[in-house]
Amino acid sequence: MKAEIVPIGTEILLGNIVDTNSSFLANQLAPLGVDLYHISTVGDNRNRIVETLNRAWARADLIITTGGLGPTQGDITRETIAEVLSEETTTDTQLWREIQDRLRHYHRDVPQANMKQATVIPSAQVIPNPVGTAPGWWIERDDHIVIAMPGPPHEMQLMWNEHVFPRLRQTAEGSILSKTLKTFGKGEAKVDELLEPFIKMANPSLATYARPDGIYLRITAKGSKDTITQHMIAEREADIRSILGPDIWGVDNETLESIVAGLLKSKHLSLAAMESCTQGLLSNTVASCPESLTCFKGGLVACSYEAKKDLGIDADIMEHFGTESRAVAEAMAEVAHRTIKADVGIGLDGTVSATKKMADIFIAVTCGSFKQVVSRTFLGDPCRMRQRAVYAALFQLRKILSEDLQCI
Amino acid sequence: MKAEIVPIGTEILLGNIVDTNSSFLANQLAPLGVDLYHISTVGDNRNRIVETLNRAWARADLIITTGGLGPTQGDITRETIAEVLSEETTTDTQLWREIQDRLRHYHRDVPQANMKQATVIPSAQVIPNPVGTAPGWWIERDDHIVIAMPGPPHEMQLMWNEHVFPRLRQTAEGSILSKTLKTFGKGEAKVDELLEPFIKMANPSLATYARPDGIYLRITAKGSKDTITQHMIAEREADIRSILGPDIWGVDNETLESIVAGLLKSKHLSLAAMESCTQGLLSNTVASCPESLTCFKGGLVACSYEAKKDLGIDADIMEHFGTESRAVAEAMAEVAHRTIKADVGIGLDGTVSATKKMADIFIAVTCGSFKQVVSRTFLGDPCRMRQRAVYAALFQLRKILSEDLQCI
Repeated sequence: MKAEIVPIGTEILLGNIVDTNSSFLANQLAPLGVDLYHISTVGDNRNRIVETLNRAWARADLIITTGGLGPTQGDITRETIAEVLSEETTTDTQLWREIQDRLRHYHRDVPQANMKQATVIPSAQVIPNPVGTAPGWWIERDDHIVIAMPGPPHEMQLMWNEHVFPRLRQTAEGSILSKTLKTFGKGEAKVDELLEPFIKMANPSLATYARPDGIYLRITAKGSKDTITQHMIAEREADIRSILGPDIWGVDNETLESIVAGLLKSKHLSLAAMESCTQGLLSNTVASCPESLTCFKGGLVACSYEAKKDLGIDADIMEHFGTESRAVAEAMAEVAHRTIKADVGIGLDGTVSATKKMADIFIAVTCGSFKQVVSRTFLGDPCRMRQRAVYAALFQLRKILSEDLQCI
Repeated sequence: MKAEIVPIGTEILLGNIVDTNSSFLANQLAPLGVDLYHISTVGDNRNRIVETLNRAWARADLIITTGGLGPTQGDITRETIAEVLSEETTTDTQLWREIQDRLRHYHRDVPQANMKQATVIPSAQVIPNPVGTAPGWWIERDDHIVIAMPGPPHEMQLMWNEHVFPRLRQTAEGSILSKTLKTFGKGEAKVDELLEPFIKMANPSLATYARPDGIYLRITAKGSKDTITQHMIAEREADIRSILGPDIWGVDNETLESIVAGLLKSKHLSLAAMESCTQGLLSNTVASCPESLTCFKGGLVACSYEAKKDLGIDADIMEHFGTESRAVAEAMAEVAHRTIKADVGIGLDGTVSATKKMADIFIAVTCGSFKQVVSRTFLGDPCRMRQRAVYAALFQLRKILSEDLQCI
């Protein structure tokens, strides 16, 4: 199946937003065995959208549009699809009631403008949008599938995951399966070097890509049925684990925070954090993970010497060892654990320099009599270094929970 | 001048990388008065690239390609441009020497494959690449400009900033200026309804777009010189402020956190935060802003009843009014202010329900004898609602600092 993605919106062409939808969708289409040959971005202009959709119709079987489903006058994706398919638009009164109900439920006005979001054409089936007022369209006609989804990434992704992907999956032939192994510690060039023979092979294929939480390795296998592709993936995974074993922290949708939360829960341990240079990002990353609900108790964020002192760090330690130091990180882990009454305390201290583009970080973990501090150095822009520091802390905590605290 | 961007690379179509180049370039083209009508992404396939470039040649005066200038067999941007222009490629021996020198300088091998990066055609002028081995091309022929730049964003951006933008700027006629007004509170449909007459006008034009921190309004004016376009923008801004005044919190590159930090600094006030359902995002958002360095002291993150109690919230208040309540939010603002010894305390409490896709939030601010709690409701996915809650808190804090605490 050949696909074309058509992102619609003048705000993309003005550079006001970065189109992340296309890369999300491209990444999803590959394992479905769909060949994506074109991404054709166009603004909110009727003639140009119609021309783009006509060309996509001629050269692809699957057309996915994103954007242009809003209530404003500039949102004309529905009208242009109708024009390309020569179908009449009508208002689905049931759908319009649902949209009104949703708006009223949240105590909002119901602007008449939203009524256009209840527009349908005969060949379109409505795809529900549980988090917005823009329903999607699923159209099957003349051996083509046309899917129209809203532009806001969280609305599009939910619609994709809950409705579109499962339905497209049914249309795929044979078996194409993927598994992603996630590593932390080694750089992309090093990982590529170590895995070079596998990267050159076609089936299963191996692709590497860099993320803030490490280098991901995606194995994709094609075969006649799932049992065969599963076996191919398992073999390649074993090869890779024999080379990169200690660096691999998870697979597929797992996150470092979900892995850590899982380990904490299995050991009936609770966690509290205290951080300085990462400015609350550690607490926020851990707490945002649904699995942390019962094991992460809370965090302290100290952005200055005074705040550290006010929150319980001994001024003598800071004066003797330096405000940002190994000893202070250790004291921070201790204070977190004591103040918020958690079994495990983690302290993250250090300096992040925007001018030197360098960060020196201390990660301290305390749990009963176990105490450990490690240091890490990162390079790059400050925002990225803070993110790396948080993932380094979680990677270290995972290692401690799965190795050093095995007896607990 | 009409432009088309042609990102080239199979890795984009596989979703292995996000194409951030196009949004960077789009953002740069708008103020040059260049109309970008299409972004046409294509993979490393000769026929499809030639077809895409031919179409771009027919409908645009300025064609910018990114990617496909590397040394591998898949990198065929030069060859395909030569084919489209019916020109012969030759090796520029001087350029090949420079590329070899650069590789040797970094103690790298000089693979013969890199030689193709020294290829030129008669109408191409070479654009230097000081940070990579892929030089760019600047082509002027038959009233068209074709610019080929490398794919890695840091190489492309440096080439753009140092060579391409200055040269394109010379070709721009008259003055085109933009100003963005940023609002919070009203939804996009409501804002569009209120500003409908202005949105329909062509010059100055007005575009609205939704962001987590509110609805942005971009005014763009075209005229013969800057004094005229500046005046046109000022007039339209006054029109909009007369309608949406209290909702507008900033302009252009300002963020809500930078505005709040600026207000705090001008009043010599320090801030501390305590939050529950936003899981550290409030502290992280405020602390990440460079302007907060001297005024944001720190934050407390309490993810459970116990953590709230451990951090100083009176158990009686929670039992009497509920763990997530107006009274608890007020106590949280008080605890933040007292524990971290800051002039202003902000408390953010409430519930974020993933199943109901709804959040009920209480925002409390305390400063000396001033105390205020407001409630807000959000809908959507939990991550998005938390983001909105944080911006609602900052919007409220901005209001209090600029209105209610004017006397301080």
